Amino acid sequence: MDDKVNLAEKIGLLEEPYVPGIVGYLNDYKLVVVRVRGEFVWHEHEDTDDFFLVLEGRLTIQLRDRDIVLSAGEMFVVPRGVEHCPRADEEAHVLLIEPRGTVNTGDAGGELTAEEREI
Amino acid sequence: MDDKVNLAEKIGLLEEPYVPGIVGYLNDYKLVVVRVRGEFVWHEHEDTDDFFLVLEGRLTIQLRDRDIVLSAGEMFVVPRGVEHCPRADEEAHVLLIEPRGTVNTGDAGGELTAEEREI
Repeated sequence: MDDKVNLAEKIGLLEEPYVPGIVGYLNDYKLVVVRVRGEFVWHEHEDTDDFFLVLEGRLTIQLRDRDIVLSAGEMFVVPRGVEHCPRADEEAHVLLIEPRGTVNTGDAGGELTAEEREI
Repeated sequence: MDDKVNLAEKIGLLEEPYVPGIVGYLNDYKLVVVRVRGEFVWHEHEDTDDFFLVLEGRLTIQLRDRDIVLSAGEMFVVPRGVEHCPRADEEAHVLLIEPRGTVNTGDAGGELTAEEREI
């Protein structure tokens, strides 16, 4: 991972929505791309904020008190400990940044929990 | 900073090249936008990697042994301790992510050193 990364190319390697791929590292953080389609699962991360940048499409980050609607070129950081549930009625492509070891489903677990893997 | 951030709008608030603005935080990292035009200064960061994502234009990250040329949607992480010098012959808009307190000119200092400020 000592060369540049074209994010759209990496998105093209993802087989299906909600199966993320690591495209690089920044110190002890992982740089992750993911396709979002449909609704994820309500969860929170007790120990970390959660960075979302939309690369393509439209992503809704549902919070308990409001929705954050992101288009391409828009970002939002979910604060640690805040419950959220990503949703995309049409597919969205997203760059996520989180500490290595952060579980995508946070405290919720379940079938959408994904292993960390590089693509 | 509890709402979404439109990166292009934030870029529009920057008065001149190489004067960065903080648009958010991810734990103890700052999320920074900057306009790049012309050549910056050769420097390194002893304690941290350095994340670059090009939002618009074309950015060349000169390393001592090669150039990394990034277009919009492409990213590169300069490893800690690696000398680099950003350059853009035409203006580029860039998202940077670094630990809070990281000095933009690293070990080099000089007149392009910028204060941390939120925009």
